[in-house]
Amino acid sequence: MAKPSRGRLRRGAYHQGVTDVIERPAVAEAIDHFPGSRKVYVSGPRPDIRVPFREVRQADSVAPGGATPNQPLRLYDTSGPHTDPGAVVDPREGLPALRSGWIRERGDVVEVRRDAGRSVLRAASGAVSQLHYARRGVVTPEMEFIAVREDVHPALVRDEVAAGRAIIPANINHPESEPMIIGRRFLVKVNANIGNSAVVSSIDAEVEKMRWATLWGADTLMDLSTGKDIHTTREWIIRNCPVPVGTVPIYQALEKVGGRAEELSWEVYRDTIIEQTEQGVDYFTVHAGVLLRYVPLTASRVTGIVSRGGSIMAAWCLAHHEENFLYTHFDELCEILRAYDVSFSLGDGLRPGSVADANDEAQLSELRTLGELTEVAWRRDVQVMIEGPGHVPMHKIKENVDLQMELCHEAPFYTLGPLTTDIAPGYDHITSAIGAAMIGWYGTAMLCYVTPKEHLGLPDRNDVKAGVIAYKIAAHAADVAKGHPGAQRWDDTLSQARFEFRWEDQFNLSLDPTTARSMHDETLPAQGAKVAHFCSMCGPKFCSMRITQDIREYAKRKGVDEGLAVEIGLREKSREFRDEGSHIYVPAE
Amino acid sequence: MAKPSRGRLRRGAYHQGVTDVIERPAVAEAIDHFPGSRKVYVSGPRPDIRVPFREVRQADSVAPGGATPNQPLRLYDTSGPHTDPGAVVDPREGLPALRSGWIRERGDVVEVRRDAGRSVLRAASGAVSQLHYARRGVVTPEMEFIAVREDVHPALVRDEVAAGRAIIPANINHPESEPMIIGRRFLVKVNANIGNSAVVSSIDAEVEKMRWATLWGADTLMDLSTGKDIHTTREWIIRNCPVPVGTVPIYQALEKVGGRAEELSWEVYRDTIIEQTEQGVDYFTVHAGVLLRYVPLTASRVTGIVSRGGSIMAAWCLAHHEENFLYTHFDELCEILRAYDVSFSLGDGLRPGSVADANDEAQLSELRTLGELTEVAWRRDVQVMIEGPGHVPMHKIKENVDLQMELCHEAPFYTLGPLTTDIAPGYDHITSAIGAAMIGWYGTAMLCYVTPKEHLGLPDRNDVKAGVIAYKIAAHAADVAKGHPGAQRWDDTLSQARFEFRWEDQFNLSLDPTTARSMHDETLPAQGAKVAHFCSMCGPKFCSMRITQDIREYAKRKGVDEGLAVEIGLREKSREFRDEGSHIYVPAE
Repeated sequence: MAKPSRGRLRRGAYHQGVTDVIERPAVAEAIDHFPGSRKVYVSGPRPDIRVPFREVRQADSVAPGGATPNQPLRLYDTSGPHTDPGAVVDPREGLPALRSGWIRERGDVVEVRRDAGRSVLRAASGAVSQLHYARRGVVTPEMEFIAVREDVHPALVRDEVAAGRAIIPANINHPESEPMIIGRRFLVKVNANIGNSAVVSSIDAEVEKMRWATLWGADTLMDLSTGKDIHTTREWIIRNCPVPVGTVPIYQALEKVGGRAEELSWEVYRDTIIEQTEQGVDYFTVHAGVLLRYVPLTASRVTGIVSRGGSIMAAWCLAHHEENFLYTHFDELCEILRAYDVSFSLGDGLRPGSVADANDEAQLSELRTLGELTEVAWRRDVQVMIEGPGHVPMHKIKENVDLQMELCHEAPFYTLGPLTTDIAPGYDHITSAIGAAMIGWYGTAMLCYVTPKEHLGLPDRNDVKAGVIAYKIAAHAADVAKGHPGAQRWDDTLSQARFEFRWEDQFNLSLDPTTARSMHDETLPAQGAKVAHFCSMCGPKFCSMRITQDIREYAKRKGVDEGLAVEIGLREKSREFRDEGSHIYVPAE
Repeated sequence: MAKPSRGRLRRGAYHQGVTDVIERPAVAEAIDHFPGSRKVYVSGPRPDIRVPFREVRQADSVAPGGATPNQPLRLYDTSGPHTDPGAVVDPREGLPALRSGWIRERGDVVEVRRDAGRSVLRAASGAVSQLHYARRGVVTPEMEFIAVREDVHPALVRDEVAAGRAIIPANINHPESEPMIIGRRFLVKVNANIGNSAVVSSIDAEVEKMRWATLWGADTLMDLSTGKDIHTTREWIIRNCPVPVGTVPIYQALEKVGGRAEELSWEVYRDTIIEQTEQGVDYFTVHAGVLLRYVPLTASRVTGIVSRGGSIMAAWCLAHHEENFLYTHFDELCEILRAYDVSFSLGDGLRPGSVADANDEAQLSELRTLGELTEVAWRRDVQVMIEGPGHVPMHKIKENVDLQMELCHEAPFYTLGPLTTDIAPGYDHITSAIGAAMIGWYGTAMLCYVTPKEHLGLPDRNDVKAGVIAYKIAAHAADVAKGHPGAQRWDDTLSQARFEFRWEDQFNLSLDPTTARSMHDETLPAQGAKVAHFCSMCGPKFCSMRITQDIREYAKRKGVDEGLAVEIGLREKSREFRDEGSHIYVPAE
C-alpha cells in the first residue's frame, strides 16, 4: 500500500471546493449549554453525506478605525441529532439509520432476521470491514464522511485504515452512528465509559449519560454495564447513540454463568459476542493477551491485576490451568468480527494499577502477545486497536508508546489516562489528564477518560462532564502539540477574542461556555462587565492587555509601525504618548 | 565550587542517625481536613532546629496469616504553626520568630529601628544572603533545617545555593518563615498567588487565604495586592506566614503615583522596595528585562503583553523613550536586596499570553537579558530565580526549559503553568497542570499555580484550594518522574492501602482526604463499605483487586511461589483452585 504524501493530503487542501454549508431552517441557537452556537452540516461529494459541525459565531472586532467582521469557528461535533433542533428524536424509536444505505449498497450483507422492526445484518460471506475495502483501494462513504469531518483528503483516510494505522469502528448493525476515525494522523479522540453496576444506576440514567457525554465531546462510548438488564440497557444506548459503542463482552458472559469465572467457556463467550454484534456494538475489548504464564508475573506487583476482564481471565486460566480461551479461539473470534465489521480493542488485562507497576514484565509480555494477535486479526481484515495503561509516571510514558508502536505494528493505541501519580483520589481526572495529554502527543489515537470518582465511586452526571472536559483538554493539547492542521485555530480564535475583550465570544468559544460565564459573573456579575475593556482580576488600572492595546492603537493612529518607529527614533512619539498617557487607564465605558 | 557527589548526598543517607521525632503532648489528631494525620517535628543537629512534618498513620495489613503493622508516612508540611494544636497563634501577634536567633548569631545585622515591637534589621555592611554564606562554605541553620526537611545532606543544600542552582528565600525581616529551598535537585515547589484588587477582597480574606493555601501545600505565597491598604495587608500576611512571601513592588509604586505609569521613577520604586524589604518580603518580581527595544516585538502577537508588571514597564519605556529604569538601576537594586537577603524573581514581562505567542522573539530576547542580570546579581551575592511562561504548547515546553537553563546559567526556573491550550477558560488549573507537570519534570524548580478562575475572575477559597491541589499533583508527578528520592514512596504507600482495601488509609493518605471520602460516600455511604473488600465501581463480583488477592492468597496458602508453580505444572493446583473457586466472588463481610 502506497504511503500517502503528507503534503498533498493535509487538512484543508482538499475540501475547499467541495464543502458548503447546508442550513436547516429549524436550526436555532437553542442549545442551552452552547450559547452562540448552531448546528450546521457540511455536504460531502454525494448528497447523503452531510457532516455535522457546531459553528460558533463571533462579534466584530471594533477598533478606532472601524469594525472588522470575524468568521464563525466550526468545531467537530459528536452530539449527533440530539442537538439538532430540526430533528425530533424519540428514544424509543432511536436515531435515523444514517449509514443504512451505504451498508446496503455495497451488496455484501444479508438480513439474518428482523428484530423489533430493525434488520439484523451480517456478511453474506467473508469480511465486510472498512479495512477490507480500504485494502482494495475503495473509499467508502464512511471514509468520505470522515474526510469532511477531519478536513483531510479521503485517500488519507483510506490509506491509514488500509495500513492498520487507523480504524473506523462501524458495525453494520449500528447504522445510526456518524462515522469517525481513530488513528494518530487524525484528531485525538476521547472515550467515555458509562454503564451500570451491581450497586447502582438504571437504564434511563445510562441513556441520558450517553447523550450527556456526547454533548460534551465524547467520540466513542463504552458500555461497561455489569448488572441485570444488560441486554436492554445496551439496546437503548446503541439505538440512540451517534458515536461508536464499545463493550467488554466477558462481563455479560460472566453474568450468564452466575458470576463464576471458572464456569466461563468459549461457547458462552461466543454466543455473547454474536448477541452483541447483532445488536450493533462497534468494538469489543477482548483480553486475549492474558496468558496463563503471565499471571504469576503479577504476583509481586504493588497492585496485582486491576483490569476486571483481565482478572476474570486470569482466574479462569488458573482454575483450569489452561490457556486463555480468548487466545486459543482467537481465529474464530476474528471470523465472527469480520462478518459485522466489529473492531478489536485488544485489552490490556495486565495493565499497571499503580505507578510502581508501570512498564513491568507482565504489562510488556501481554503487549507482545497483543502485537501477535494484531497480525492474526489483520490477516482476516478485522480492524484492531490496542488498549494501554493505566498508571504510568511521566518518564515512562514515551517508552510505553514507542514499544506499543513497535510491538503492535502501529495499530492505534487507546489508553486509559495514564495517571501520572497515585496520590490524588478524587482528582484523578487531573492526575490522568497530564498523562493523557502527553501520551496523545506521543502518538496515542484515543484516550479513555477518567472521572474524579475513579477508585472511589460511580461517576454521576457532573463527574462524566468533568471527565470528558478534562480529556477534551488533553486531546486538544495533544492535537496542538502534534501540529495537527487547524487544531490551533481554536486557541488562536479564542485568544484573539480574549485580547480584544470580546467577553461573550471568549465564553462561547470555550470548551464549557456556561461555566466560563458563570465564573466571570461571580466577580463581575453586571452585564456591563461583559463589554468592559478590563478583567476582573486586575481592575481597569492594571490591565496589561488594555495597556498593550493602547500601545498598539497609539502606534497605528500615528501611522508608524512600532518596530520601525523605535529604529527611527521615538523621542517625538514618546512625548505624544506621554501627553496622551492619562487615557491609558480609563476604562472604555 | 566542588560539585557534590550525587551518590553520597542522596536523600535518606544522611539523616538516619540524626533525626528523631519530638512529639508535643498537645499534638492531637484534630485537623479537620487531614483525619488520621498529626503534626510531628524532626530535630536537626541543634535543638532549635525542629522541622515540621505531617505524619499519616496507617492500619495494619490483615491477611490470613495475621496482621502486619504499616509504618506511618511522613509528608512535607507547609502549614506552619497554624496546624499545631500545641501552638496558640494570635493573628494580631503573628507567628513566633523561628529564625530570629539564627539571623542574630551571624553577627552581620543591625537594627534599623523598632516597628510595633518588631526589630527591623538590615546588613551591617555587604551581603547577608544565604548565597553569601554558601559561597564561603558555611552551612547555615536555615540550610540544616532544609536538609532535614528534604532529607538530603546539608552540603548538597549549601553547594546548590552556592552554585546559584537553588535559592533559599529568607529575608532577615521575615524570621517567622520556615526555611525552604527552590532548586531542581530538590522537591518541586508550588507558589500560590493571593492579593486583593481594586474590584474585590479584604485584608482578613487575604490572611485567611494565606492560611488556606499553605494548609493545602503552597510552598511560597505571592501577595499581588493592588488596591488600597496594600501596606497593611502585606504586614498581616507576612507576620502570619510560615512560608516565604513574594511581591511585585511595581504595583505599590504605581499606587504611589496615582496609577499613572509615566510618572513612575527609580526613586519612587526604590522607596517602595525599601519599605517592603523592611517588612520582610522574601522575593521580588522585578521586570528588569522588559527593554525598550523589545516592546515592538510584541506588536504582532496574538495577545501582546499579558504581564501586568511588564505592560506597566513597557508603557513607561514608550512614554519616556528611555530604557527601563529597573534595568538601568539594577546595580543599586542589588545593593539593596543583598542587605536584607531578598531574592530576585526576575519577571518575564513579555511572557506569552497564548500558545500562538510561545517561545517568540520577544520572550526569548527578554530571557537573554534576564540571564545577563542573573550574573550581575550573583556578583553581589543576591539570590536569583527566573520567571517563565505562561501559555506554551507541549512541544515547545522542553525547548523553553533548555533555553532558560542555558541563557540563565541554571538559575532556578519558576513558571506560571504553562497552559498547554487556550480553549478552556474555567478549567485552566487543568490546562496548566499538564504543562506544569511536564516543565517540572524537565527541571523547573517552582510552579506558580493557576486557578479555575484564571482569565475570568478572582479566585475564592474553593478556587485557591483547587489551584493548589492541581499544582501539588503536577509537582509531585514531576518529583516522581525525576526520580526524586523518596517521592514515589507516597504513591506506593497509597496504592498498597488501596490494594488491601484499607479504605480509611487510602482516604487519609490522599492529597485531599475529605474529598476522597465524600466521593466514596456518594456511592456507598454506609460505614461498612469503608471496610468492604470491593469497590463501589464494580461491586463485589467484578472486583479485579479482590480476585488478584484471592489468587495470591491461594498460592501462599499452598506454599508455592506462583512463578515456580506454573513451571512445575499446575494441574493439581488448578483443580484445588477450582474447587475453592466459588469463594472468589463472595464479599468479605
